Amino acid sequence: MCRWIAYRGETTALEHYVTEPDHSLISQSIHALEATASVNGDGFGLGWYGTHPEPGLYREIRPAWSDENLRYLCRHLQSHLFFAHVRAATGTPITRPNCHPFVCGQWMFMHNGFIGNWSRQRRQVEALIPDQLYPSRIGTTDSEAMFLAIMGAGIERPVEATEKVLATLSGFMNSNTPHDRLRFTAALSNGRDLYAFRYAVNDRANTLYYRESDKDDIVIVSEPLDSDHKHWVAVPEGHALVALAGERAHIMPLFNRQQEAAEYQRVRVQDPGEALLLRSAR
Amino acid sequence: MCRWIAYRGETTALEHYVTEPDHSLISQSIHALEATASVNGDGFGLGWYGTHPEPGLYREIRPAWSDENLRYLCRHLQSHLFFAHVRAATGTPITRPNCHPFVCGQWMFMHNGFIGNWSRQRRQVEALIPDQLYPSRIGTTDSEAMFLAIMGAGIERPVEATEKVLATLSGFMNSNTPHDRLRFTAALSNGRDLYAFRYAVNDRANTLYYRESDKDDIVIVSEPLDSDHKHWVAVPEGHALVALAGERAHIMPLFNRQQEAAEYQRVRVQDPGEALLLRSAR
Amino acid sequence: MCRWIAYRGETTALEHYVTEPDHSLISQSIHALEATASVNGDGFGLGWYGTHPEPGLYREIRPAWSDENLRYLCRHLQSHLFFAHVRAATGTPITRPNCHPFVCGQWMFMHNGFIGNWSRQRRQVEALIPDQLYPSRIGTTDSEAMFLAIMGAGIERPVEATEKVLATLSGFMNSNTPHDRLRFTAALSNGRDLYAFRYAVNDRANTLYYRESDKDDIVIVSEPLDSDHKHWVAVPEGHALVALAGERAHIMPLFNRQQEAAEYQRVRVQDPGEALLLRSAR
Amino acid sequence: MCRWIAYRGETTALEHYVTEPDHSLISQSIHALEATASVNGDGFGLGWYGTHPEPGLYREIRPAWSDENLRYLCRHLQSHLFFAHVRAATGTPITRPNCHPFVCGQWMFMHNGFIGNWSRQRRQVEALIPDQLYPSRIGTTDSEAMFLAIMGAGIERPVEATEKVLATLSGFMNSNTPHDRLRFTAALSNGRDLYAFRYAVNDRANTLYYRESDKDDIVIVSEPLDSDHKHWVAVPEGHALVALAGERAHIMPLFNRQQEAAEYQRVRVQDPGEALLLRSAR
Repeated sequence: MCRWIAYRGETTALEHYVTEPDHSLISQSIHALEATASVNGDGFGLGWYGTHPEPGLYREIRPAWSDENLRYLCRHLQSHLFFAHVRAATGTPITRPNCHPFVCGQWMFMHNGFIGNWSRQRRQVEALIPDQLYPSRIGTTDSEAMFLAIMGAGIERPVEATEKVLATLSGFMNSNTPHDRLRFTAALSNGRDLYAFRYAVNDRANTLYYRESDKDDIVIVSEPLDSDHKHWVAVPEGHALVALAGERAHIMPLFNRQQEAAEYQRVRVQDPGEALLLRSAR
Repeated sequence: MCRWIAYRGETTALEHYVTEPDHSLISQSIHALEATASVNGDGFGLGWYGTHPEPGLYREIRPAWSDENLRYLCRHLQSHLFFAHVRAATGTPITRPNCHPFVCGQWMFMHNGFIGNWSRQRRQVEALIPDQLYPSRIGTTDSEAMFLAIMGAGIERPVEATEKVLATLSGFMNSNTPHDRLRFTAALSNGRDLYAFRYAVNDRANTLYYRESDKDDIVIVSEPLDSDHKHWVAVPEGHALVALAGERAHIMPLFNRQQEAAEYQRVRVQDPGEALLLRSAR
Repeated sequence: MCRWIAYRGETTALEHYVTEPDHSLISQSIHALEATASVNGDGFGLGWYGTHPEPGLYREIRPAWSDENLRYLCRHLQSHLFFAHVRAATGTPITRPNCHPFVCGQWMFMHNGFIGNWSRQRRQVEALIPDQLYPSRIGTTDSEAMFLAIMGAGIERPVEATEKVLATLSGFMNSNTPHDRLRFTAALSNGRDLYAFRYAVNDRANTLYYRESDKDDIVIVSEPLDSDHKHWVAVPEGHALVALAGERAHIMPLFNRQQEAAEYQRVRVQDPGEALLLRSAR
Repeated sequence: MCRWIAYRGETTALEHYVTEPDHSLISQSIHALEATASVNGDGFGLGWYGTHPEPGLYREIRPAWSDENLRYLCRHLQSHLFFAHVRAATGTPITRPNCHPFVCGQWMFMHNGFIGNWSRQRRQVEALIPDQLYPSRIGTTDSEAMFLAIMGAGIERPVEATEKVLATLSGFMNSNTPHDRLRFTAALSNGRDLYAFRYAVNDRANTLYYRESDKDDIVIVSEPLDSDHKHWVAVPEGHALVALAGERAHIMPLFNRQQEAAEYQRVRVQDPGEALLLRSAR
């Protein structure tokens, strides 16, 4: 299970959220050992927006906790919107192109979760990537493939593009017997707006929290950075968090504005045995 | 341009051919600098057959010349059939899964060359890989894709499988305007038999040489290991070198046992102006 | 805290002890997470004796669990005497030269423990390395410095050389206020004989176990490879395990055959307050 | 032979000097292949001053030309004073701590050259590092040892501190038979002032050039970034380039303001045979 943080707000040095001793992502990933026996030692990455139109990216295959470059970079890089991610691989090799975040033009994406049975699902998921975006497929992860599929599904409306891809993936997951699982807790940004998603198919969704101090000042995390849980608002399963530039963030259910989604749910209600599935799709 | 060596013969320490000072692959790759301004510093790999049914593999993204592990391994690993490869990347990332050789079951493959316009050709080349082999697609190179396509084209007859894939690739290369180029100087083995290919489409083929001292004792190289060229037999363009276990190696033209290939050649003879193309494709 | 295993016996593939699923060093290092919250993700190393007079060495800075090369090597490398080590760094950088084992001529060494206050102790510990061995100081760890000091203290009598260095180090540890700590659970070999040590100053010694099935067949570990503790004999603190080629292993107390050691202990008895120190030196 | 560039001037993205296609350090290091058969593929580093009192550092063991992180960082990092360095190792291992630049407090240093016979000279050079700076000795290079020796020789007067260390090193070089060689073309900064040195003992000094467009706007390089040599002023052997903040840069001879240096030269004049040495010490 990966861990990640997305920040938007006052321009700040990344170290306050990524590398500093107490409540940062790195320290969290070490404390996490005791709690969950999950080590996030399979590479990590930073992505940040600065003055250049395209975001910067720093990805490494070493564990984040031992990377001396990371400490220097987080002290010196300043950004008003950045992502940081520590990886626990689920099968694909430990290479830099397989580390999060992923960048495509001005868009940036990172993910905690997986597409179950990836080696069998992979081909049809990659087929969702349009030809013109296929050169951006530089790694081999399920996460990067989903990102590029979303990019190709109408990224100018990010929530709908994501819903469209998730609906297709739900179909893929349910077309095998036994059904495959999907977990998708992800963040997406264009450098101004910030979107996060918590969704699963045939499984429980990984957690998603946020903390908003002002209308442009938001931290979104896969797991709270400190144990003071009252600071953190949990995003429910099957929901998106939308934090447009200059507006307060709001939580919205996935798949409820579209006929396609309604039908999607209707189909499922007809099959009362699939309770697990229902919960995740709602 | 990559460089490689394939060895079959007496079980020997790899160091004699890979790392030792004078005529090894590593020293060659450094001397090569003066001659060709080509640095093979984008990773390297070893593959070798031992007592285990599947070959061993050691691939690294550092330059071979500075890898202290490589020196130890080449001193201690002994094999009767091994491949070694130093890479000069042509666009795909420097990751271990993108380094040669590639292994699939008992088969091993390495390559010097490229598929031109890879980002546009990639999708249809990957489509040549059968579903059941697609999980073995762990990197993103053109070389690995060609290998898995060959594996899926009837690997029990390796020359025909390779011809089949090369014919398909020739079609791909010529379907774009302007035509794309293909260079394919490759080695393939199942641990007993050794095959090498020298082929190109719309381009000159990279060189291929071999030296045979006894019927089971053969060294095949992309470029001679020493400057004493009389030791080395050049394999002509458009030919395969076949060194079956227990037999002397022989050179055979590609595409001349099959009707498809015959026609392929006839077409070209009719157009004497396309000398470059002729030489490489036929 | 590092973990290690030393093996001598029938020539075997390293995988049985290093990488295989159940009771190997790698799997142990992952299970260890739950037990001790210690992650051995700061590099690892293999050292082995083969037909070449000097041992082979493979050291990497990535976590052992994600190194695909390691799996291939452990399947193909065979040895009658090998070391494997997974590192949890205690301050010195994560570099290959700082990974264990260390090699000097035909000797090999690995260590679990530390010299407390290393940045202050370092200079005088390095001064114990004789000039002619200082070129072998290619890393910056306390462990390598101790090894080279032992090499220079009369390595033809390994237990006495180690005692000599430990006695000197004890002096160093006690010359500061507050006293510094030393933990030294180490293995040493010349390719035939195997020595292991469990010692500490001003601290508890890290554990040391072994399992002997025949007179030349011994596995020595920092922590048992399986939970069936009755297979494993614990070596007491302040003792060495000596497994000479062709003889059964025996445990011997450190510092009791030499006048120097006797005096060393006498001095300590005069200071009854230093109970902790006494325990570790005995 | 390493290559480096030091920049001070308008705050700028590092890419203009480090990674961009035409006249940058990276492209230079590739063109350099043809000219000098020297590949700078043994790691690289960036050091830069920003708003934090201590400089940032990014050092990697891969060749600079294939590091995708480097391209992103050089696009996004902006600085008014930075160093960049590509390494060709001369014997010490390829590790991050052995890559330039080196940082100690607010000071930064990088070097092209070597101390000849380093494995024999090393111990006495390391002894020049004061105890309180020895914890900053995190690598094993001659370059880092010289830097820390200079730091300890009165860094508040950087030229004199450097002269003091170079005089001592000259003595070391000449105390062996045959004499050892030293090459020292280095840059040093505290974030405001910039110092560069060109010096050698028993050898020719490596080149040093600079280009000054305004009083605070200077680029200092080991080799010109473009072939238009009239832009570049060569610093003569045995000289320092001093570029204090807010002043025009000036070249000054080493060793001519101090009695110590005068005597140093007098001693040498008594030995007319050491012409080579004289040239380098002057």
